[in-house]
Amino acid sequence: PPGRKVLIVYAHQEPKSLNGSLKRVAVEELSKQGCSVTVSDLYAMQFEPRATRNDIVGCLHNSEEFNYGVETWEAYKRGGLSSDLIEEQKKVQEADLLIFQFPLYWFSMPAIMKGWMDRVLVQGFAHEFPNCYDSGLLKNKLALFSFTTGGSREMYAKGGISGDIRYLLWPMQHGIMHFCGVRVLAPHICFAPEYVSEEKRKEMLIAWAQRLKTLWKEEPINCSPEWYFK
Amino acid sequence: PPGRKVLIVYAHQEPKSLNGSLKRVAVEELSKQGCSVTVSDLYAMQFEPRATRNDIVGCLHNSEEFNYGVETWEAYKRGGLSSDLIEEQKKVQEADLLIFQFPLYWFSMPAIMKGWMDRVLVQGFAHEFPNCYDSGLLKNKLALFSFTTGGSREMYAKGGISGDIRYLLWPMQHGIMHFCGVRVLAPHICFAPEYVSEEKRKEMLIAWAQRLKTLWKEEPINCSPEWYFK
Repeated sequence: PPGRKVLIVYAHQEPKSLNGSLKRVAVEELSKQGCSVTVSDLYAMQFEPRATRNDIVGCLHNSEEFNYGVETWEAYKRGGLSSDLIEEQKKVQEADLLIFQFPLYWFSMPAIMKGWMDRVLVQGFAHEFPNCYDSGLLKNKLALFSFTTGGSREMYAKGGISGDIRYLLWPMQHGIMHFCGVRVLAPHICFAPEYVSEEKRKEMLIAWAQRLKTLWKEEPINCSPEWYFK
Repeated sequence: PPGRKVLIVYAHQEPKSLNGSLKRVAVEELSKQGCSVTVSDLYAMQFEPRATRNDIVGCLHNSEEFNYGVETWEAYKRGGLSSDLIEEQKKVQEADLLIFQFPLYWFSMPAIMKGWMDRVLVQGFAHEFPNCYDSGLLKNKLALFSFTTGGSREMYAKGGISGDIRYLLWPMQHGIMHFCGVRVLAPHICFAPEYVSEEKRKEMLIAWAQRLKTLWKEEPINCSPEWYFK
């Protein structure tokens, strides 16, 4: 609906890829609805995935023994995080909905996107014990993981060789988003687009656009072990 | 035992950290046994986690539309991967045992280590459909995930707020290592070392050294959904 803000965190090297098209479809459809859409195109930004001392501007809290979690927490509080992190945090802060668009790499997100999670969602900003899970600091936001797979739907079925696809959603949806208080919408999965016809890939894009039309009416999933492991 | 080769893939910024000590203990104990031990110290190497066109030397197989999986597969076959990847692959090829030593970041490994998985374990080298899982190309090797957590053992208990720690091992142990044919030893987990006494942390180091003494007699876990989700 008009006024809603969406951040798409996008990790694919090739604009012509299905991931690139899925991202474009989301920008178009959500903009048409009157949403304001921002894209963090991680490869294009050459986003830094490594969590290092460079993320803290100026002196360290403890220069004797470097602790990334403590240092970024302290730096956040005094406004001393590196500018690329501050920029991403602003985008997150403003967003009502976060869409993560990526190809599944090794049952998870590509390293460049994992680095976005590791570096952007610092303590003090996204969580601050005991403010985690339902009381995480990013509550009142929604997240949606939209990804493509190499393996087929059958491989990712319960009893399939790769196990139920929901098993691998646990660390991303529960461990990251729910931990920060974000409510999670059902994932959007395009299985094995490389092994289907151009026709089928077009249907995948249409299905995504279709889903986005009624996205704001969706209820978040119940992000507890039952949803994942039954 | 003498002659066995071990590769430790290590991801911590601070040598004085518990992860740094766990790595050192492993190097010492395994060397004492007569093993030959190699360490890939990812932060010290400034290891590149991003999967990009730079990983392919020379011309692309398809320069119209970049597909990382296809391009690295083709590059592997013609010896055209970037030199940092060839070097890591040599270390993996020679190793009988891979130890991954890291602090848990967001229910998973730090991005720099995920990038090692994304970039080193390319098709043709580590797997080549249908040679995956029990017939993956790295069969006859062992892997062990050794990590520290922020959360306590209670949080990671079945029914705990963060769920059974085994839930989050699925993508790493089954999705990556088992997929490549590697048999997986039980993980080694140090819970919440930042919140215990110096005394307790020393006990953690001793326990790790102790386990390593009889490591070669251990049976791999049965890496199937039952082990993870009961």
